[in-house]
Amino acid sequence: MKVLVLGGDGYCGWPTSLHLSEAGHEVVIVDNFVRRTIDHELKAESLTPIADPQERVRAWREVSGQSIGLEYGDLLDWEFVSDLFVRHQPEAVVHFAEQRAAPYSMIDRRHAVYTQHNNVIGNLNVLFAINEFAPECHLVKLGTMGEYGYPNIDIEEGYIEIEHNGRKDTLPYPKMPGSWYHLTKVHDSHNIHFACRIWGLRATDLNQGIVYGTVTPQTEKDFRLANRFDYEEVFGTVLNRFCVQAAIGHPLTVYGKGGQTRGFLDIRDTVRCIELAIDNPAERGEMRVFNQFTEQFSVGQLAEMVVDAAGKLGREATIERLTNPRVEKEEHYYNAAHTKLLDLGLEPHYLSDSLLDSLLNIAIEYKERVDTDHVLPSVDWRTGKRDNVPIEEPTAL
Amino acid sequence: MKVLVLGGDGYCGWPTSLHLSEAGHEVVIVDNFVRRTIDHELKAESLTPIADPQERVRAWREVSGQSIGLEYGDLLDWEFVSDLFVRHQPEAVVHFAEQRAAPYSMIDRRHAVYTQHNNVIGNLNVLFAINEFAPECHLVKLGTMGEYGYPNIDIEEGYIEIEHNGRKDTLPYPKMPGSWYHLTKVHDSHNIHFACRIWGLRATDLNQGIVYGTVTPQTEKDFRLANRFDYEEVFGTVLNRFCVQAAIGHPLTVYGKGGQTRGFLDIRDTVRCIELAIDNPAERGEMRVFNQFTEQFSVGQLAEMVVDAAGKLGREATIERLTNPRVEKEEHYYNAAHTKLLDLGLEPHYLSDSLLDSLLNIAIEYKERVDTDHVLPSVDWRTGKRDNVPIEEPTAL
Repeated sequence: MKVLVLGGDGYCGWPTSLHLSEAGHEVVIVDNFVRRTIDHELKAESLTPIADPQERVRAWREVSGQSIGLEYGDLLDWEFVSDLFVRHQPEAVVHFAEQRAAPYSMIDRRHAVYTQHNNVIGNLNVLFAINEFAPECHLVKLGTMGEYGYPNIDIEEGYIEIEHNGRKDTLPYPKMPGSWYHLTKVHDSHNIHFACRIWGLRATDLNQGIVYGTVTPQTEKDFRLANRFDYEEVFGTVLNRFCVQAAIGHPLTVYGKGGQTRGFLDIRDTVRCIELAIDNPAERGEMRVFNQFTEQFSVGQLAEMVVDAAGKLGREATIERLTNPRVEKEEHYYNAAHTKLLDLGLEPHYLSDSLLDSLLNIAIEYKERVDTDHVLPSVDWRTGKRDNVPIEEPTAL
Repeated sequence: MKVLVLGGDGYCGWPTSLHLSEAGHEVVIVDNFVRRTIDHELKAESLTPIADPQERVRAWREVSGQSIGLEYGDLLDWEFVSDLFVRHQPEAVVHFAEQRAAPYSMIDRRHAVYTQHNNVIGNLNVLFAINEFAPECHLVKLGTMGEYGYPNIDIEEGYIEIEHNGRKDTLPYPKMPGSWYHLTKVHDSHNIHFACRIWGLRATDLNQGIVYGTVTPQTEKDFRLANRFDYEEVFGTVLNRFCVQAAIGHPLTVYGKGGQTRGFLDIRDTVRCIELAIDNPAERGEMRVFNQFTEQFSVGQLAEMVVDAAGKLGREATIERLTNPRVEKEEHYYNAAHTKLLDLGLEPHYLSDSLLDSLLNIAIEYKERVDTDHVLPSVDWRTGKRDNVPIEEPTAL
């Protein structure tokens, strides 16, 4: 199947592109590479060195014999997007191409506006392009479990049957997202739902949990295929961050009480979920919603697990509770449905000692590359200010 | 109270500004006057001639002795917005300054993107400005009843208590809006809710029904104070359009079966609702939602009422059912709560023969100004194309 992977150079996009290519799909990566630029902005870099895009694709051809296309462009640029769809006539589009870090969106007004503009308008352009140039194309869109927030009732997959004053209807699940970034995914979901209703587009909205791990069977075939490993507090996801903190002997930083419970999944399941969605497309007019995670943990539990795993590797790790820079409930009910991907055949990689070992060992291998300025939170949800990171004055040239 | 009226030159904004000024508030109108430019784009104009903004304000000073400030600027321009809040230190901001026509947002991709960008980012800038420069300021934001869509259960005011699998929570009411425009109001609501939760802003979200009428006690004091009367199918609201059709002897155009039921209100109630919201501000951290309408009618019922009223004035009016250019349910359950503004003291002007007479008489008085090219629908929800209106080639200068 001809598949465009929008944002195919990123943390989830790159291993997904490799996985889909290996599965026999004709993959074209579309990316503006802004994530690499943001590394420069944040004065941060992936723990694991990552190759340039063209080198990645070349390496994949050498290793697998498969070609992956590479298109440089921005989803805000309609001329680019329309031309892309006219030329490729994709049968599926996987849309990862959004600013994906909640803390980044909370830095200040400018970053909030950038995130909402980039994500919402980019996604709108994709919807219009599908409708105009490839109406049968299946949109597989990355959402987030964070769209739902933390209600005191069970979370369902996208929709909920409500009985009210003696009548019933099944309606979109109410949303209470916790950052300007998470809000964009809510906005996107509403926009996609409308496009499916009026134009009969087909879409799958994947409300993904927090991803951990960095390695897939494809990325480990060659060092040039390595995936990003973000460990700083803006883009690094929590388990990956804890492993790096343990590797460098820094206390694991838990925000507040640590009772924040979330859905998690292994990156090897991310790529498989995308494949399952593509192989089983939504009907015309349907916006399916799948909750894409495999297990629930509290942040405190994860920290304990990393402490244990580090201990077995002979490294003493400790936990430090920080004042929570985010505005969020630190103890709450959480029970979210996640059966639809299992029904399609997902066989989860549950969080295991061996995965923690592997992450810790990668972190230990590259620990000289860790910039310790970046392991503490610097973005405050209340002030919208980035405090802790020393912003250096540009040196005179 | 010092009140900024964003979009204070528009159909609801102008009479609101006059009403608040007469009520003793210190009013500053903020507008980029794009609504006047869109008239040029659509080759349309208000049925009633409207004066230039500075002439309006000058007339009001002559008539009332009250000054209304006038600020030209765009909410997308952060330098303008931040400076505005720093200089004025408003105690309340009434935010009408959004592209408000569903059909306009459905013309094509460009108009959809314009609408979402303008409305969502403009509103974000207002939120950031309040938080940074006037955190006690009460945001009174115009939403729309169209945010809810047409669920098969009763519509509540913003939130709904849901009992699910033996647990309960009160959550934002699920949204199923019916156009790219209506979607922006849903996006705004989610963004405002978040700002109230993290920053403790105070906000009132007024989910307004369809407004009819054009005259208020203030606008009729001088011909230079006249309000706009939009009758074309893009910006004209349904009852106003029917009255113009009756005045020129055109059949009243009902889309589809005419069973589309909506909440309606008189523009004299719009201005009073805004005043009630301002006089009874939300608490810090609270986003109140009021459903701002006074009666429910189906479109078919309204057409019958206009036919009757026209008959009493000696004019025979007929009804023509058109193929529905919109994607919407033409028969549906509809029962929406609207008690909160009544609780604050709203005394509704229910739709009456005398109001219909007044509207019909205005329409008859100005019928020579009606451009008959604009009374039929031209924007198709399915194709996103504007078909019926002849777009003239620009003549050579």
